[in-house]
Amino acid sequence: MTDKPAAPRPTLEAVAARAGVSRATVSRVVNGGAGVTAPLASKVMRVVEELGYVPNRAARSLVTRRHDAVAVIIAEPETRVFTDPFFGRQLRGISKELTAHDSQLVLLLVEEKSDYARVGRYLAGGHVDGALVFSVHTQDELPAIVRASGLPTVFGGRPDPVEESTPYVDCDNRGGAREAVRHLLSLGRGQVAHITGPLDQTSAVDRLDGYRDVVPDADAALIAEGDFTPEGGERAMRELLERSPGLDAVFAANDLSASGALRVLREAGRRVPEDVAVIGFDDMVPLAGRTEPPLTTVRQDIEEMGRMMARLLLRSLERGPARGAAGPEPEADPASIVTPTVLVRRTSA
Amino acid sequence: MTDKPAAPRPTLEAVAARAGVSRATVSRVVNGGAGVTAPLASKVMRVVEELGYVPNRAARSLVTRRHDAVAVIIAEPETRVFTDPFFGRQLRGISKELTAHDSQLVLLLVEEKSDYARVGRYLAGGHVDGALVFSVHTQDELPAIVRASGLPTVFGGRPDPVEESTPYVDCDNRGGAREAVRHLLSLGRGQVAHITGPLDQTSAVDRLDGYRDVVPDADAALIAEGDFTPEGGERAMRELLERSPGLDAVFAANDLSASGALRVLREAGRRVPEDVAVIGFDDMVPLAGRTEPPLTTVRQDIEEMGRMMARLLLRSLERGPARGAAGPEPEADPASIVTPTVLVRRTSA
Repeated sequence: MTDKPAAPRPTLEAVAARAGVSRATVSRVVNGGAGVTAPLASKVMRVVEELGYVPNRAARSLVTRRHDAVAVIIAEPETRVFTDPFFGRQLRGISKELTAHDSQLVLLLVEEKSDYARVGRYLAGGHVDGALVFSVHTQDELPAIVRASGLPTVFGGRPDPVEESTPYVDCDNRGGAREAVRHLLSLGRGQVAHITGPLDQTSAVDRLDGYRDVVPDADAALIAEGDFTPEGGERAMRELLERSPGLDAVFAANDLSASGALRVLREAGRRVPEDVAVIGFDDMVPLAGRTEPPLTTVRQDIEEMGRMMARLLLRSLERGPARGAAGPEPEADPASIVTPTVLVRRTSA
Repeated sequence: MTDKPAAPRPTLEAVAARAGVSRATVSRVVNGGAGVTAPLASKVMRVVEELGYVPNRAARSLVTRRHDAVAVIIAEPETRVFTDPFFGRQLRGISKELTAHDSQLVLLLVEEKSDYARVGRYLAGGHVDGALVFSVHTQDELPAIVRASGLPTVFGGRPDPVEESTPYVDCDNRGGAREAVRHLLSLGRGQVAHITGPLDQTSAVDRLDGYRDVVPDADAALIAEGDFTPEGGERAMRELLERSPGLDAVFAANDLSASGALRVLREAGRRVPEDVAVIGFDDMVPLAGRTEPPLTTVRQDIEEMGRMMARLLLRSLERGPARGAAGPEPEADPASIVTPTVLVRRTSA
């Protein structure tokens, strides 16, 4: 950024004096004009235009290019954002970190993919300093739209393909899945089924890969696609029981699908863990501790991952836009972070 | 708003030409400067300042004063926003309505009241056209902070005190409560208890007033304060059982507290509805249909109320800031809306 101080700009006071109104009136007009009559608003706007007045905040933003606000975009319909506790947990971590840096969390809600263009306009409109994007699906246009805004960005979960310039925070999905399946084998289970997440997300693909790493010869009939929701877990569990009635263990790709699987197993009269051992993924508290029976699961620290995303972004904002400033070589982009997982044993396996 | 066209402003192209760089480079610099070297950014910023260039969006905003974005602020810590389904429901209504008008929903999350000042700065910073504010508590500084931004605003739930210029959308809390308590009396119940919401919110006070309208002589020992959460409902129910062991009915101020009350009654060996009839408020689906036993409750159409809030706000934005434009008398402020409630009978009463 340039060290040269900004050229003096016309002030709010100058507009007020020239228009013959109070500062408060000018402020009201440029901030939307509520409670100001048309002739007065018109007069103030004329002076604003004559003097080329830019409201304080916008002027400051133009010079410092800081809005003290960070956008969060979750590539899921608003209904899922508010029913899957994963998102609330990650937002809590982000919110705490941003608050500690006096930066405003601006959550941009979308209903469907056709809303992305509008999100792109908001991002490019000079309202935020950077973006945190999570739950991206392959074939999603969102990463390209965010990139086009030119804003520094951090992804939650590994995007596919990985973009060199954009760091991400993820957990070791594949390693965690391996540990879960190995644990089921160590219990002497011989037919370990897997309920996947939506396979257009890297987290779901990685967990499936981890399962396959440990049981490479597993029958395809032991794998059913879920979608990270309890309902998807119920559907997948019914499919599995029909196709593979001899199954004696299930690794579900997240706790919500595991909770659905538990319900179906109970209805089918299968005891957990005696007849079928079940493991989830996430350690979504309180859910995982309250299922019947309490759920053994692979823990990832979701809130801390949210904090890490915010920290990575804030660090790149502090470095400023001109990365080459320190020397002939540009500074390395901030590195992505992959956090470890840990198996939490409760009753279900 | 004035009819006079805006004075011509220096364009992106002019800046690019004078600085001897591409349009894309200018755009990157004014949008945060990612990927641009320090000397180049500095050069572009010098030209930006010389020419008094204002980025397109900001310039357009200054003239049209439209950002096609609406802020939503919920006066609750972020943790409650993501655990109480009420908020997700109301946001869904708001989101649908805003999307239909191609306006971006910008949810401003707060951790605690000390964050309000930051929210106020964002609101006043020219990033949104208006604000929707809900779950306001008495003594809350938020309404004053939002008012200071000068943005058109609609409240969800009646604020206290009501502001003439700011409409709100609410349901008939008092009437709904009356119907619930009358229904309990019609079942022959003689000791109807009430678990209140947080009494610094008008919705909770109104529901308590409705209860008192019907049983004005109720013993104070039959009223316990809750906080609209399941845990608060549990605590209040324990208190009530201890103070008034003879109670045979409970009206809980919302479904979440009713679900907590049901849990405590079950643990205490009281059958619902045989020993104790229970009614909630909200008709929070799926919760109300899945409690044990399914919950009789007072229904309010939360999603539709969200839509109404958005509609009221969009209407006042369309009318523009200068309300007096049409004639000598300013147009009436948009009227507040109070929607009716309906008793939904399931099993618990």
